[in-house]
Amino acid sequence: MRNLKITIEYDGTNYRGWQIQNSHKSQVTSHNSNKTIQGILEQALRKILREKIRVIGSGRTDSGVHAQNQVANFKTKTKIGCQEIQRCLNGVLPSDIRVKGAEEASADFHARFSARAKLYRYTIVNDSFASPFLRRYAHLVKSPLDVRKMQEASRLFLGRRNLRSFQAVDKKMRPAVRAIKRLNVRRVKNLIYIEIEAKGFLYRMARNIAGTLIEVGRGKLQPQAITSILAAKNRVFAGPCAPAKGLCLLKVAYL
Amino acid sequence: MRNLKITIEYDGTNYRGWQIQNSHKSQVTSHNSNKTIQGILEQALRKILREKIRVIGSGRTDSGVHAQNQVANFKTKTKIGCQEIQRCLNGVLPSDIRVKGAEEASADFHARFSARAKLYRYTIVNDSFASPFLRRYAHLVKSPLDVRKMQEASRLFLGRRNLRSFQAVDKKMRPAVRAIKRLNVRRVKNLIYIEIEAKGFLYRMARNIAGTLIEVGRGKLQPQAITSILAAKNRVFAGPCAPAKGLCLLKVAYL
Repeated sequence: MRNLKITIEYDGTNYRGWQIQNSHKSQVTSHNSNKTIQGILEQALRKILREKIRVIGSGRTDSGVHAQNQVANFKTKTKIGCQEIQRCLNGVLPSDIRVKGAEEASADFHARFSARAKLYRYTIVNDSFASPFLRRYAHLVKSPLDVRKMQEASRLFLGRRNLRSFQAVDKKMRPAVRAIKRLNVRRVKNLIYIEIEAKGFLYRMARNIAGTLIEVGRGKLQPQAITSILAAKNRVFAGPCAPAKGLCLLKVAYL
Repeated sequence: MRNLKITIEYDGTNYRGWQIQNSHKSQVTSHNSNKTIQGILEQALRKILREKIRVIGSGRTDSGVHAQNQVANFKTKTKIGCQEIQRCLNGVLPSDIRVKGAEEASADFHARFSARAKLYRYTIVNDSFASPFLRRYAHLVKSPLDVRKMQEASRLFLGRRNLRSFQAVDKKMRPAVRAIKRLNVRRVKNLIYIEIEAKGFLYRMARNIAGTLIEVGRGKLQPQAITSILAAKNRVFAGPCAPAKGLCLLKVAYL
């Protein structure tokens, strides 16, 4: 069996996230359809390779979250070359999902378990209105945000910490100790970017951190409050979850 | 009566262009709805100002064409301040149309007749696939394009010329002599930008020039062919009309 690694870019607006949903979870659909990126990819691969393919992603992205470089792998018996598989996939996939690369991986490569770090970016439009060209990719915050305070708060997240306060309630509550290696906040004109790098992310952690930093920027929370929020190990003390559309998976690192 | 000037940004994907359509023109709708930017703006203004408002644009943009800074003006009796009108408009308009500014203009300001120059940009993705984030805003050309040849061809358009060969058949065939002040082609990674500045544009002129430059980039036309195409004064000699989604009205200049 060959083990292929693919890099995928997607506009998550019209999808219920990366992961194939269990039937009981997909009852309420709101504005998104029931389609998942993983599901659409598996369908496309089955069509091209005439095999049932299981695609493993580096991690799930939530409904409405985007990716510039999501990574996935799958095992296949096909003899079709990587470039040809990429070309065929891009011919079959909808235009909001694109395969940017496909390559042979070693037999033990696993998109999730082999990942060393992930980098997410959260984009805020801090203005009285959002450009039509950014409306699907950024979260509009009308109140002026104090980026210095957000930066001060962001430093308190760094290093190995229990991040239970920033984890949404999930079916499995995994250990909440995670190491945030980088948490940068920067303003470029009317945009504010929050970049978060960690090896592992808890459920909704990136969006809960972004939402909390927005509260700090607004002046509703003092930067030092982060220390006590972390210590509380309880979701109710952190800020709200920031909307999905502002979040994008930029990169996944492998050795 | 006050005369107000507004600057508008829009994602044209879901509109039948700027101008309100006559009923006989709006029979076939293809993927776009019957909505026009002008129509939506007039509806929003009527709601806010409780007056019937006629909005004059700097020029029509075709179905599916975008704008970063379209300019329009309208006369009104209202006493509501400009900032407040802008704020209310952005509260009422759909998220793919935004009013970036509103200001008092002199009584004789006319968005179309007072315009001194317009700048359009045509965006090409020259790659084997287009990023999901650009799929609505750029035209994918898979064959490698020779930007040097496109630049060579572009210089032959400059100055006052009869551009009949680049004018789509229109109900009114206006005089076709126009002065192109600037026609730049540049590559940034896998993107190619064509910027066209002129005082006046003929119907589909920008897209016909872009389509012809693409033929030159592909090697289907020699750069020098532009001279004979211009001399022919006949649309059949130029290249095809490039798709609307790649075109964006960047700026309109006024004294």
